[in-house]
Amino acid sequence: MDPRLLPFGLCLLVLFHSGLAQIQPRRPQQQPRLSGRPECQIDRITAREPNHYVESEAGVSEYWIPDENDELECAGVQAVRHTINPKGLLLPYYPSTPELAYVVRGQGIQGTVFSGCPETFETPMPSEGGREEFLDRHQKVYRYKEGDVIALPAGSVHWTYNDGDTPIVTITLRDTSNVANQLDRTFRKFFLAGNPLNKQIQHGGRSQQGNGQSGRRQEQPRRGEEQERGRGGSRGGGRREEQGQEGSNIFSGFDDQILQEVFNVEYDTVRQLKGQNDNRGFIVRADNFQVITPEKQEQRSSRGSRRGGANGMEETICSAQLSANLANPSHADVYNPRGGRVSTLNSHKLPVLDLLQLSAERGILYKNAVLSPHYNLNAHSIIYVTSGSSRLQIVRNDGSAVFDDWVREGQLIVVPQNFAVVKKAGEEGCEWVAFKTNDNAITSQLAGRFSYVRALPEEVLMNSYEISREQAKSLKYNRQEGVVFSPRSTSPRESAKNTLLNVLFG
Amino acid sequence: MDPRLLPFGLCLLVLFHSGLAQIQPRRPQQQPRLSGRPECQIDRITAREPNHYVESEAGVSEYWIPDENDELECAGVQAVRHTINPKGLLLPYYPSTPELAYVVRGQGIQGTVFSGCPETFETPMPSEGGREEFLDRHQKVYRYKEGDVIALPAGSVHWTYNDGDTPIVTITLRDTSNVANQLDRTFRKFFLAGNPLNKQIQHGGRSQQGNGQSGRRQEQPRRGEEQERGRGGSRGGGRREEQGQEGSNIFSGFDDQILQEVFNVEYDTVRQLKGQNDNRGFIVRADNFQVITPEKQEQRSSRGSRRGGANGMEETICSAQLSANLANPSHADVYNPRGGRVSTLNSHKLPVLDLLQLSAERGILYKNAVLSPHYNLNAHSIIYVTSGSSRLQIVRNDGSAVFDDWVREGQLIVVPQNFAVVKKAGEEGCEWVAFKTNDNAITSQLAGRFSYVRALPEEVLMNSYEISREQAKSLKYNRQEGVVFSPRSTSPRESAKNTLLNVLFG
Amino acid sequence: MDPRLLPFGLCLLVLFHSGLAQIQPRRPQQQPRLSGRPECQIDRITAREPNHYVESEAGVSEYWIPDENDELECAGVQAVRHTINPKGLLLPYYPSTPELAYVVRGQGIQGTVFSGCPETFETPMPSEGGREEFLDRHQKVYRYKEGDVIALPAGSVHWTYNDGDTPIVTITLRDTSNVANQLDRTFRKFFLAGNPLNKQIQHGGRSQQGNGQSGRRQEQPRRGEEQERGRGGSRGGGRREEQGQEGSNIFSGFDDQILQEVFNVEYDTVRQLKGQNDNRGFIVRADNFQVITPEKQEQRSSRGSRRGGANGMEETICSAQLSANLANPSHADVYNPRGGRVSTLNSHKLPVLDLLQLSAERGILYKNAVLSPHYNLNAHSIIYVTSGSSRLQIVRNDGSAVFDDWVREGQLIVVPQNFAVVKKAGEEGCEWVAFKTNDNAITSQLAGRFSYVRALPEEVLMNSYEISREQAKSLKYNRQEGVVFSPRSTSPRESAKNTLLNVLFG
Repeated sequence: MDPRLLPFGLCLLVLFHSGLAQIQPRRPQQQPRLSGRPECQIDRITAREPNHYVESEAGVSEYWIPDENDELECAGVQAVRHTINPKGLLLPYYPSTPELAYVVRGQGIQGTVFSGCPETFETPMPSEGGREEFLDRHQKVYRYKEGDVIALPAGSVHWTYNDGDTPIVTITLRDTSNVANQLDRTFRKFFLAGNPLNKQIQHGGRSQQGNGQSGRRQEQPRRGEEQERGRGGSRGGGRREEQGQEGSNIFSGFDDQILQEVFNVEYDTVRQLKGQNDNRGFIVRADNFQVITPEKQEQRSSRGSRRGGANGMEETICSAQLSANLANPSHADVYNPRGGRVSTLNSHKLPVLDLLQLSAERGILYKNAVLSPHYNLNAHSIIYVTSGSSRLQIVRNDGSAVFDDWVREGQLIVVPQNFAVVKKAGEEGCEWVAFKTNDNAITSQLAGRFSYVRALPEEVLMNSYEISREQAKSLKYNRQEGVVFSPRSTSPRESAKNTLLNVLFG
Repeated sequence: MDPRLLPFGLCLLVLFHSGLAQIQPRRPQQQPRLSGRPECQIDRITAREPNHYVESEAGVSEYWIPDENDELECAGVQAVRHTINPKGLLLPYYPSTPELAYVVRGQGIQGTVFSGCPETFETPMPSEGGREEFLDRHQKVYRYKEGDVIALPAGSVHWTYNDGDTPIVTITLRDTSNVANQLDRTFRKFFLAGNPLNKQIQHGGRSQQGNGQSGRRQEQPRRGEEQERGRGGSRGGGRREEQGQEGSNIFSGFDDQILQEVFNVEYDTVRQLKGQNDNRGFIVRADNFQVITPEKQEQRSSRGSRRGGANGMEETICSAQLSANLANPSHADVYNPRGGRVSTLNSHKLPVLDLLQLSAERGILYKNAVLSPHYNLNAHSIIYVTSGSSRLQIVRNDGSAVFDDWVREGQLIVVPQNFAVVKKAGEEGCEWVAFKTNDNAITSQLAGRFSYVRALPEEVLMNSYEISREQAKSLKYNRQEGVVFSPRSTSPRESAKNTLLNVLFG
Repeated sequence: MDPRLLPFGLCLLVLFHSGLAQIQPRRPQQQPRLSGRPECQIDRITAREPNHYVESEAGVSEYWIPDENDELECAGVQAVRHTINPKGLLLPYYPSTPELAYVVRGQGIQGTVFSGCPETFETPMPSEGGREEFLDRHQKVYRYKEGDVIALPAGSVHWTYNDGDTPIVTITLRDTSNVANQLDRTFRKFFLAGNPLNKQIQHGGRSQQGNGQSGRRQEQPRRGEEQERGRGGSRGGGRREEQGQEGSNIFSGFDDQILQEVFNVEYDTVRQLKGQNDNRGFIVRADNFQVITPEKQEQRSSRGSRRGGANGMEETICSAQLSANLANPSHADVYNPRGGRVSTLNSHKLPVLDLLQLSAERGILYKNAVLSPHYNLNAHSIIYVTSGSSRLQIVRNDGSAVFDDWVREGQLIVVPQNFAVVKKAGEEGCEWVAFKTNDNAITSQLAGRFSYVRALPEEVLMNSYEISREQAKSLKYNRQEGVVFSPRSTSPRESAKNTLLNVLFG
């Protein structure tokens, strides 16, 4: 290796999210996932709206639940979009699989309880007398806002509250094939409060107004949807259980007397614990809700917090950082001022993702810009479009396109591992979040400055494609951009021969 | 974080077995298990007696073999209880999955052979002349006694001998979903001696005397059971193989001449190696059996051995410690003098458990004491009651109780990952051993001093359960105990309102 | 432990490939594999010729594709043998699973592209003018020769070229159950050039001349085989996809205009990129092919390179060594001048195997020599005979032989994990390569100096086999060799009683 290239190589190692470079052979990049499937026949991929929903007192939850052998089931994932109205509280629960959430809009307070960690947040109370003088102590909570990614480890207790004045919308991936889920590949949600079983899961989307449009309607659940209940019917007896995933809270299965004994409380309290007359769903309205958070939550960039703040305590789960911002342009890992930007959040930036074995990517393409054709080397990618739209082509190993259509705001699409994909933004541009089933997901480019064409000798290109040396050079060097391509090439070598193309397509 | 809390936090990190605290985000807590099951429908869990048995010359083996889709199969485990009479030798074999054994009673000698490790135990022989002057050299063996946990790695050769004068009773978990087992999720036992196929596996338990009682009868196998043979019939053709799991020894599949050549021995010895006329089963009587062990095996506490004795050699498998005591009260991790104690053995205490990816817990509840409602965050728990009985309630994610009954001495029950469980000892108290399918299993409390109610802000409790601040405080603080609860609460805040409850239930 | 034995123990730790000794309990030896199979019923194992083939312009590819529930599928592997004629180029592709190749004969150039790594090989060009003065830069390529093992990580782009004057023959294992393959247990090959779909996969072997012989005919594909096309028929509808595994190249699924835009090239070049009129198969003839490699590739032994050359950069995948030689006698790990030798390549020698979670073994037995009966403790072993033949016996856990026959040059056979196997070379001796599904595969001997009989106390042998102490000693000590046994024992203790045996069998 030319030693003069070393700094360049090292630079690549540090800077590029899209490469294998950060992998060291001593630590396998593969994280086990329990597919166990002999064969996944993916003939067609669909851009999906949610297919089930549940309405609660203070919000609505819309689900992407897999059908048998569809690409969601093949990828071993589910998704849910929660809309939490102002003063809405998502009741505490623990999930059987890790979840990774992206805050599409709004802001709120998140609590995640780790068993055995100390209660480090204290509320001084003004009154002095009786039991109430006792300070409230609880484990730490944190604020999140639009553009944040929230890690929700399996088995930990999570709750969230909207103390803002606009609805919160989150999109959450549930990784049912994750090794944390020993029992099977089903998502199970264990509620600690409420009576969610009371709220039936509805089939279909929440609106009949076509697939083409979506947009902000999630924020204002329309009341007229009540009459939709009951339509849709069963999706096959074998999938029933998934519909019941949002069951009653687990205390309802315990004996009253046992509960009275272990909590040492009155019968009234036990009855409320079981919540059997609770009709509010699992996002409830909480009007008086004063939870302290540090006045100015330091929104340290995750990179900064790793460098500066690291000490022994940070290594324990009790003080693990559980969220990081992806929307801030200053966090971009890829930036082309004429094309857009891509930010990645992996376990190097947010170490708790190593526990979840998941990562996320935030992308923004400007009008008509193109994301280089690429494949996900070690992960499935589950894309949710947060605004705008883009045309995607997804190609299988036999060279056939399993998807060639537009994906619009509010839709979700799965790009399976190794499948080739290209993305071109529409007239309004496109913004998306992609969840990846690997804590250090790697994409491999098929065109542009970081692609395999640059890495191959000209002779290999010439003989592989039966082209001249001149053509091989054009394949290697005509596209000087890396990951995000401007709508029209700006290279000075861009000659008149591409004008017709640009007229037709640009 | 309040810096004054740091020592408290660190203290928690070290002391509490029940928390996530010891996990560092850099090292995922999840150990892969090959469930591969799309869905496990667990509608009902059963407290089980063994359903098969095999009688041998010097002992009996009783099996818990899963049926299709029962909770044993869902958890990916099997179990066996060996009763080895005095002078009984369990013939050498290697298993396809790791096994973890608990010595219910008795004491003996265990040998585990690691290929490539040196023969470090030497027997000086008095006679001087001919071949016999040659010392016997073999790999190390060790003594075990009641209350010990024995790690049996997959693929290693194991044997055990009862040199005491009372029967040994062990309960052994076989982890068929362990990643060590690449081929499938079936337990395979490769015997190196004997002819175990000769001994048919019998269906049903060894006694007809009801399910309710069990007790010490395992120790004295009654001869009258011979006539039970043949009853029970087949459990479905597809499960046949499991019945044959205790097959002939593997030498019977090799050619006589090959064996003569490779061992360079006479034909007589080869015939004995194959053991085709052996009718003793796989626990055989060995009358003259002189195996040396260090006179006073140092029963160092595993914690002590980690701290003090660690050096480079200890890191190799050749000198790994393979057993540790769980019964000694001084090893308790949780202790309440009015309720009982719990001791845990994980890979921090016995490092070889990292290889097995299993751990164990020993629990003792006094009369009417309660083990806090909790769930197993990252493992299934397979409980075997060694004495007494307790009432268990196990609750699924939809809030329904899949078990609500007594579990008695000699019975085994599976608590699947994340399922909520509460345990209340009966009049005689209850002692059990629980095997966990994770080398660092974590339990998460649902009541008491370490539970989520302490960790949640009062506002979350008030709004989740629709209760007053007073009631929220009672939920958080009325139970001051941590994991093991005394039969009656001793808190001074325990007021008259609970008297009726105590009369009814306490 | 006797301290005088420590050096001996340490010596064992370093020298013996066949032991558990190199494993440290802190790092589990188990690598997860996604079998997920409830039960694998292996009643019979077959020595297999390839069952499919594809002919290309400059070579031929022959496949071992599993049938449902055969031992290949149970082990989660496939295999392919490529014959690449002089000037043949195997077109660039990326596989969905890791591949491990052994070069049976010939020599060539291998390129493996890691996305994000720098182009560190530069070609100075003599001409000065226009674009052509631009140097060609590409990622490193390396030479390989007969006896080399080549690691082909999943998701990386691979190509190979034969610049010698004799055909290259390689045998490649494809590990479909590897965790790198998240989607399912199917092998998928994503071609970046050519139109392989045009070439139908043929059923059956390439020749009708019996199974007994094989030999060098792979090197000269006979033209007469064209008429065999179409025979064989389908192997069941469900397995169709595997036949199509060598599909069109992935660019054929993208829109022409998108490709023109992203590559910024003329339409002609895009048409060639898609290769839809390409009829050459995927091994194509490349007459003018000048790729630079360092003039004298240093064939450093992998052991040497680890010790001497290690620095920070070596730890990155960009500079990982991807191949190592196994054929050189000086690399032998086991050597018996009267019996043969065995060389092992694991992740301690070639660290990238940690990423692949595979390893390889090269064995040579002289005429009539015997490889000690043993089992593979933590891996399946997939054996391909490169010359000669040997008789194998493979024994299942129930003591029945699932294989007892000859395996000949060009045949492949699977020895499942834990199954006992013995190998005796025929009159011509036997040479083989074995692929193991673990980056640090461990074998455990059943006879000889490293076997369990040495490790067991005499009393255990005496009582297990019902033999005298004299017989136990003969079992332990009559075979003084370790792994490879000479055709006749040379021990001075070898007495007349074995003469008859030797006459009959030796």
